[in-house]
Order: sequence, then C-alpha cells, then structure tokens
Amino acid sequence: MPHLRLALSQIDPYVGDIARNSDEVVRWTRHAAERGAHLVAFPEMALTGYPVEDLALRRSFVDASRAALGELAARLAAEGLGEVPVVVGYLGRSEHDSPRLGRPAGSPQNCAAVLHRGAVATRFAKHHLPNYGVFDEYRWFVPGDQLSVVRLHGTDVALAICEDIWQDGGRVAAAGEARAGLLLVVNGSPYEREKDDVRLELVRRRAAEAGCALAYLNMVGAQDELVFDGDSIVVDADGEVLARAPQFEEGCVLVDLELPAVREDAPAEGAVLADGLRLVRTDLGGEVLPAPEQPVVAGVAPRMGDEEEIYAALVAGTRAYVRKNGFRSVLIGLSGGIDSALVAAIAVDAVGAENVYGVSMPSAYSSEHSKGDAAELARRTGLNLRTVPIAPMFDAYMGQLGLTGLAEENLQSRLRGTLLMAVSNQEGHIVLAPGNKSELAVGYSTLYGDSVGAYGPIKDVYKTLIFRLARWRNKAAEERGETPPIPENSISKPPSAELRPGQVDTDSLPDYDLLDAVLQAYVENDQGRDAIVAAGFDPAVVDRVVRLVDTAEYKRRQYPPGPKISVKAFGRDRRLPITNRWRRG
Amino acid sequence: MPHLRLALSQIDPYVGDIARNSDEVVRWTRHAAERGAHLVAFPEMALTGYPVEDLALRRSFVDASRAALGELAARLAAEGLGEVPVVVGYLGRSEHDSPRLGRPAGSPQNCAAVLHRGAVATRFAKHHLPNYGVFDEYRWFVPGDQLSVVRLHGTDVALAICEDIWQDGGRVAAAGEARAGLLLVVNGSPYEREKDDVRLELVRRRAAEAGCALAYLNMVGAQDELVFDGDSIVVDADGEVLARAPQFEEGCVLVDLELPAVREDAPAEGAVLADGLRLVRTDLGGEVLPAPEQPVVAGVAPRMGDEEEIYAALVAGTRAYVRKNGFRSVLIGLSGGIDSALVAAIAVDAVGAENVYGVSMPSAYSSEHSKGDAAELARRTGLNLRTVPIAPMFDAYMGQLGLTGLAEENLQSRLRGTLLMAVSNQEGHIVLAPGNKSELAVGYSTLYGDSVGAYGPIKDVYKTLIFRLARWRNKAAEERGETPPIPENSISKPPSAELRPGQVDTDSLPDYDLLDAVLQAYVENDQGRDAIVAAGFDPAVVDRVVRLVDTAEYKRRQYPPGPKISVKAFGRDRRLPITNRWRRG
Repeated sequence: MPHLRLALSQIDPYVGDIARNSDEVVRWTRHAAERGAHLVAFPEMALTGYPVEDLALRRSFVDASRAALGELAARLAAEGLGEVPVVVGYLGRSEHDSPRLGRPAGSPQNCAAVLHRGAVATRFAKHHLPNYGVFDEYRWFVPGDQLSVVRLHGTDVALAICEDIWQDGGRVAAAGEARAGLLLVVNGSPYEREKDDVRLELVRRRAAEAGCALAYLNMVGAQDELVFDGDSIVVDADGEVLARAPQFEEGCVLVDLELPAVREDAPAEGAVLADGLRLVRTDLGGEVLPAPEQPVVAGVAPRMGDEEEIYAALVAGTRAYVRKNGFRSVLIGLSGGIDSALVAAIAVDAVGAENVYGVSMPSAYSSEHSKGDAAELARRTGLNLRTVPIAPMFDAYMGQLGLTGLAEENLQSRLRGTLLMAVSNQEGHIVLAPGNKSELAVGYSTLYGDSVGAYGPIKDVYKTLIFRLARWRNKAAEERGETPPIPENSISKPPSAELRPGQVDTDSLPDYDLLDAVLQAYVENDQGRDAIVAAGFDPAVVDRVVRLVDTAEYKRRQYPPGPKISVKAFGRDRRLPITNRWRRG
Repeated sequence: MPHLRLALSQIDPYVGDIARNSDEVVRWTRHAAERGAHLVAFPEMALTGYPVEDLALRRSFVDASRAALGELAARLAAEGLGEVPVVVGYLGRSEHDSPRLGRPAGSPQNCAAVLHRGAVATRFAKHHLPNYGVFDEYRWFVPGDQLSVVRLHGTDVALAICEDIWQDGGRVAAAGEARAGLLLVVNGSPYEREKDDVRLELVRRRAAEAGCALAYLNMVGAQDELVFDGDSIVVDADGEVLARAPQFEEGCVLVDLELPAVREDAPAEGAVLADGLRLVRTDLGGEVLPAPEQPVVAGVAPRMGDEEEIYAALVAGTRAYVRKNGFRSVLIGLSGGIDSALVAAIAVDAVGAENVYGVSMPSAYSSEHSKGDAAELARRTGLNLRTVPIAPMFDAYMGQLGLTGLAEENLQSRLRGTLLMAVSNQEGHIVLAPGNKSELAVGYSTLYGDSVGAYGPIKDVYKTLIFRLARWRNKAAEERGETPPIPENSISKPPSAELRPGQVDTDSLPDYDLLDAVLQAYVENDQGRDAIVAAGFDPAVVDRVVRLVDTAEYKRRQYPPGPKISVKAFGRDRRLPITNRWRRG
C-alpha cells in the first residue's frame, strides 16, 4: 500500500491579516517538510481568516486574497518548500454564472487550493454552504460544483471543505464514487459544548460512507463570537481513530497513512458524480513510497471534561478578542459576586494577572462581605484592585432628579458603567462585561450599567453553569497546588445585585435551576410555551419567563459580543425581531 | 375582454400579532367587497407580519400561522365575504424534502394562499429567496417550486411573491409561458431612497417579459429597522401605469382591469415551465364580466420629492417602533445642535408634541446659544422641555478620578446618557438616540453617552443630508403657514460636540461634504481604499476615514436600531467583523 505522511496544521489565522497568515503557512509548511510530510493541509480560508463576513463582498479584499495565493505558491517554492503539496483555504471567485442565486461569474467563493512547485495546481470551492445558526454563506458565496482529487505518491486524495461533510451526499458520496484513498476535509468549525463527540461520530460515519480514510483538520483560536477548538481527527476507512489533536492548542498533527493504491476502476476525469459534482483529477506525481521504518506516532490527545472544555473556550475567546484587537489589559467591575469573579479568573488566565485591573465600586447597599470578597479575589489572583465608592455621584444625581424604585436601582449600575468607561478611556484597558446568559435572557441587567464592555466572556453561560465552572476552576487550581482563584464566599452566598437593601436575585426571578431549565427549552430548543408546559413546568413560570425573554430582546441587541459555547448563543445564532407581538412563545 | 376589479390592500401588518392581522384582513376585505372588488390582495406574510426572522423557526408560531389561515377563510365566509377570493401571505410549511438545502418536508416557507368560499383554494411559496442585504431567507425558508394560476371571471391570474420578480426568469417567465392575463405580486419590499423609481422600472420590464398586466402590492408601516413605503403599482402589458398608491399611506387601491380571456393555447395543469416551475391552476369560477359603466379611477398618486420621502420614512419608522412596542412618549437629549433638533422634529411628527420630552443638559463647555437653541426648539414645536445641568455629577466624578482629555470629554456625554436613562426609567418614555450616519461611520460618538436609546431615527442619514432634511422640513412648514420647527441657528452654526472649550467637529474630522463623499464610496459602494483614491480623493483622507470606519465597528454593534433609508444601512445590511486586521479598505 502506498504510504503518505500527512501534516494537518491546526493553526489560528487572523481575519484580514493576509500577510501574517501567509507567513504562518510558510512557517508551518517548513515545520512539516522538515518532518518528512508529503502533503500539508491548512484550515478553511486560512489565508484570509474565517469568517470574513461581508469582507467577502469587497472586491479589493477578494483580489488581495487571490493575489496572495499566487505569491504564496511562488514563495514556498523560493524557500525550498515547493515539492510538498500544500492545501490552503482562501477567498476566491467563481468561474461560472450561478443563475439560481442570481450571481454572475466572478462572485466570491469559499475556496481551497493545492499549491505545488510554485504554482496553483488545482482549486475548488465549498459545495455545501451553511446558512443557519451563525452562518450566512449563501449571502457571501456561491457553491462549488466539482470534486477535486489529487493523485500523489500513488494514491488518490479527495478534497472537501467543512459543511461538505455535514450534509448528506455531495462530496462524501462523490469521493466514494471516485474511489479515493483518502478524503481530506479542511474546516473552520466553531466550538460548541460537546461538539467534539458529534464531530467524531460524524467523521467516522462519513469515512464509512466514502469507503476511505478521512482526515479532518480544524482551526484553533477565536474570532469575535466564535471559538475554534481544533480537535483535528484522522480515521481509517473503518472509522478507527489514527490521530486526534489536542483541543484549543495550535500545532501540527503528523500521521503516517498506508492508503490504497490508485484504483483501476476509478472514474475518468470529468465524470459526473453524486449531486452533479464533476471529477477534476490533478496528478502531482511522486513515486509510491513504502511505509517508513520509524512511523510518526501522532497519538490521540486526551479529551477535556465538560467544564474544562467550556472554560478553555471562554479563555480562548477572551484572549483572542483582546490581543487581536491590539489591547494588552482588561478592566472589570468587581462586585464580590460570582459572575465578576469568574470573569476575572478567565481574564487572568487569558492575559495574565498583571494585565487585569479590577474596580470595586461600593454603594450604600453594598454589603461588607461584597467588598471583602472583591479584595479576596484580588489577593488570590494577583490582579490590580482599586476601590472607588459611588456615593458622591449617586448623591449628585439624586439631588437633581429625585429618583425612586427601578430608576434608582438602575442609576447605581449606570454610575458604575460610566466609572468603568472613564477608567478605560483614561488608562487604555478594554472593559469586560460580567453578564451571564440567564440574566441576558430575562433582561435582569441594566443597559449601559453592568452591561458595558467590549466583550462579555460569560454571556453564553447560564448561571447554574457559572457555579460549576467556578468550582471546577478552583478544584483544578487545588490539583495543581495553586491558590484557587475564586473566593468560596462568592460561590456560596445567594446571588444579589445589591441595588436595594437585602435584595437577592430570587426576589425577582425563579430559582436558577428552574429558570435555566425553562430557558434551555425556550432558547436552545426553540420550544413554544405550550410544549414547555406540556413537559411539566409550571404554566405561570413559563409564561413569565417567555415574556421576560421576548421583551428583553432590545437589551441583548446592545450587549457586547462574547464567546459562543452553546448550540444557540444570543447574537447571530438567534435573530428575533425586537418589535414582536407574539406572546405564546 | 373579461373585466376584473382588483383591490390591493396596502396595509401595515404587525409582526407576531396574528389575531390583529386577521382582523385587518377581514376589515379591508369588507371594504373592498363593498366597493365591488372581484379579487382582494394582501401583502407578503400579512398574516404574521414581515419579516418574522427566527420566529419562522419556531414550530408553535408556524402552527399558529397555518391554523389562523384556515380560521380566516372560515371567518370570511361566515361574515358574508366568502365569494370574493382573497390572496393573503402567511408562514407555511413545505410539502417536499429540499435535499440541496438539507431541509426535510415540513420546513418553514414564505407562502401565500387564496381563500375562497370558506376554504384555502390554493397555496404556494416564494420561489426566489433573497439572501443579501437585510434578507436571510435561505436561513428561514425553502423555495417554492410551482406557478399558481387562479382562473377567475374568465381570465388567468398568475401569482408571485416579492423577490420572484427581482430575479430574472422564474415566475415572470413562467407566467408568460402560462399565458396569464395578469401577474399579481404581493410584497414586503423595504423602503430605500429612490427605490420607487427602480421599482416602477422593474414592474414595467417584468410586465413586458410576462406579456401581461402586472399588479404590484407592497405593505406600509415599519418593523424594527425596515420601513415599508407602500407605492403599490398596477401597469398594463405595455407598461402603462394604470394606478399607483400613495407612499407611506395605508389604504386600498381599487382598479378596474380589462384583461385577456383565458387563452386556448395555455399549457395544461402540471406543465413544467421556466426554472422547473410546475403549473398549478385553480378554477375559482365566476362568469365573464363586462366593463363597468362607471369604472373606479384609482389614479396615480403624486411622488414625494427626495427629502420629503426620506423624512416620511424616518417618521414612519419612529412612530412604528414607539407604538408597536407599547410606548406613548419619547425622551430626547437636546443640545441645541441640528441632529437632536431634527430628531425632535421627527418625533413631534411621529407621536405628537405633547408626547415628546426634551432635556437640556448643559455643562461648563455648553455655549449660551446652545441652551437658547434648545429652548427655541421647544417653543417652536411645543415639546416638553426641562433643563438639568450636569455640573454636580461631573464634579463628583472628577473629584474621584481626575480624568483628562478624551476620558473627560466622554464623561460628560455619559453623564447625559445616564441622566436620560434615569428620567426614562422614572417616567416611562422611550429614549431616542440622535446619532447620524457620518458619526456612526467614523465613531465620532460616545458609547453609552450620546449613543444611548432604544431607537436612532437618523442613524442612516449622513450629516450633509441632515442639513437638507432640516431645511426641507422648515420650508414645508412655511408653505403650510406653520412655524418651522428647527431654529435657524441650529442649522447655520458650525457643528460641535461642545465637550471642550471652542471645540468644532472639523477639529477632528474632514469637512462633512468631503467625509460623506468618501463614506458613500466606502460604505454604500463597498469600494476599497485604492479605488476611492483613484476616483480622485486625497489618499491621506481616505486612509484616515477607512481606518476610522473599520475601528468603530464595535461601537456600531452596540448602537440601537433605526430606520434604513439607504442602500446599505449599518446593521444587518453590512456585516463586518469587529476583529479585523484588513487595513486597505
């Protein structure tokens, strides 16, 4: 059987930074070539970063991507890396009209190319375009209509991009019909909780359907609301896992594959395969190689547990947002409560304690323990803490306006928001917002108050999960012999906004266990009011929660972005009208 | 030639309020039937409102829409309106799998039905789905695959929905092949500046292509960022305009049509037409009618001028947002400048002066004329004005923090934002944000300061257009013998944020004429930096503007919604990453 050493480059491209991404492709190709790789792959749209959103509609950007692809091919050859074929995703243009979509030839496409010996040996575009959840790919792209196969060292490698294997038929079926020895899929597949299990099952099933080995390469890092968790996988035709990369870690997965020789019954170039895909075969040459005496052992990286994985995603999202936007330091309002404490712990892990600035902003309603818990958090993590009481500002407003009730409560929160923004403007830190998903869902937050910030690290995390993550993070520290970052009192005391005397969250909301269960049904599962009641929840609670969620839509629209960890995050994942008179969920 | 009296119901459906919308269909059907109509049409998704966005993905809502459709048919008959066929848009489900999109049978569809004699006589789904600009219809719907024709009073009426006539081929070509006598198109077509001209030209061209008369019905009102301007049109097969409805006005357009008799060479039921559309013909009966002795004269409503039309759109958007969300009154920070003055004038026209509350919030840097101009605005319009100086709050913050430069400037703006929100919370008014498109583009505003609000009436209006609208509104008042609302001084003085002594906008920005021209090229036309420079603009100015626009993306994400009037509004129309290292425009 022909041998192929495959290198999957699980890297972190930067959206819009084509020069940097090209450098990364060269750097990691050299890394792979030095280790004897015969084929090197990079993720979906690695050259431009992913997703580029409406940059895809800008001619200058598409032209730059296409030009950079040619330059990259030449540069790889010039640097002595021309012999190893490199698969790299980029933003290209369609060759034909797409009348069904009303798009002319030359429209943007989500492409990948194989670079070899200083030139673009072949190129193709994603066939299945996702247009659900966070994806709008029919907005940006027209689908590709061919199956590209590269013949290399005596075996046939079929190529596909991301969604191509999430839909039935298409390139998976076509790869089978083409009698490929390997199906290589390059991805920009965003993290979701427990998606690694789904992904493994999918990869195995598609390998069986294509009847060949399957290599699945995903990117790492984060881009705005999306986190990419890596988790690249190689399976053989029987679905046996040959290699699996670590989650959230940049690196190169090398794997030695013994693949079937080119099949005599493989269809001819130009054959029309499943879904109308036309077979385009490119012979890259290379003699048939024997299995190496010392095969590389990629190994199967251990899987993280649920809390560890989610926490890692929150850290990755926060780090990427801060760094890729050119900031070094972050600012957080510390109330002594669990939400801001968890955000602080995430921030410390993302950018280092020396770059995390906390402000305690007590009011007349702040308890002694709150101030103490904030100080204890700072002591445990080493972040920089200052205290600025809001009484003088509060008195100034009350003297002018004479506010009562909710207006008085919200005022305190907004005074803190204004204070944080002032310090941010003065000192150049980026503000992190401490809102969690339960609060965002029911609008239990103050617009322009506790919602201020450039990024909301826990906006997709329900309150019940906040508690689990805090306990997990402390336990992980203990196991490493470190100081647990989050004060026990922040975890164990009843949650309170402390905007009036003796206030606790359960004055206004159901217990979080109940609230989060109803929210899970309504938000994640898109169930209507009647279906949720039929599942056994108290109708009065369901009606109240549904009403709260619907009427808080205007607040969520003005909330900062934050890392998506659930199957349906607030943001692009869930697009509901603000003006909405539907009252039955 | 058979005669048909057609009624186009140019109404304002409410998103999610199926019961109210059903009542409206009954009410306007009665109106039309009393006037002898033979066919009554309602807009795209009139039963659910449009666009419903992700409500389309909620089973309970789709079921409610489908159930309401049947109930509506029965109710029309029960109320003696069963004999006149009624075309009504609703949210339905697909009958077949859509493998190319990976969607099973039963997936949501953008449908219309013909109700007749207590039942649904026929139903069909939109064939061309828009998935660009503000539209995400591949996210929500699967396309329909038939051409529905109703045979009525001896003529054939082909049916289509909105985008079906914006794309080449499809239902327009199929209607021609089916030899229809009339093509009736129901729409939810959002307002854009000068779109009425585009629309008329399109309607005429499509009538020629289909070889028959064409009736184009659009909705009025507004939904979140979209304004619907009505402008329903009927043309004969030669493109001659037979009727045209007023812009932005609810009403029923009645038109007497003399149409060709059913053609003997019309293809058989089930024939496959252009784009694979299958012909479904429904015979609704009705004898061939002679032309009436006294035909109705629908007439052609006069077109508004550019400023009048835009201003009407801003008023419609603001009124709909306030009222449909259950508010009565609005609150505006009045600086004495032209932006807040124009917003106040719009608000007064939208909800009445007695429901408009203004707050003047002078600081030490506010000029005397600013305070005077705010008072003069209140005097001219009759809105409710109060004055609350921000000095005490400013001093309280400065005493605690010692801010300088930009931090000190932004503080003043945020103190005003907090003050407005406090009054809003205390008194129940909705806050309107006064930001214009030029400011939003370059980030010349303070997040959580002058950007606070539930709705931004002029967020899609460039500063140069603000001046034109203000002058137009004053002139229109003069022509009606009313007091011009906007003080001349607010229009003529140099724009200034008044956040430091002697500050004017041109300290930080190019002249607005130049700035807006560059923004038009970069935002509306999606031109890259090099193309804009090649068009003759100063490279240094272009580089600076492009950089400002790109780095202000995070601010725009947190800005409230406002009415879209341009071809590309900030919001769903323009989806760019925040984290974006592309620096060449």
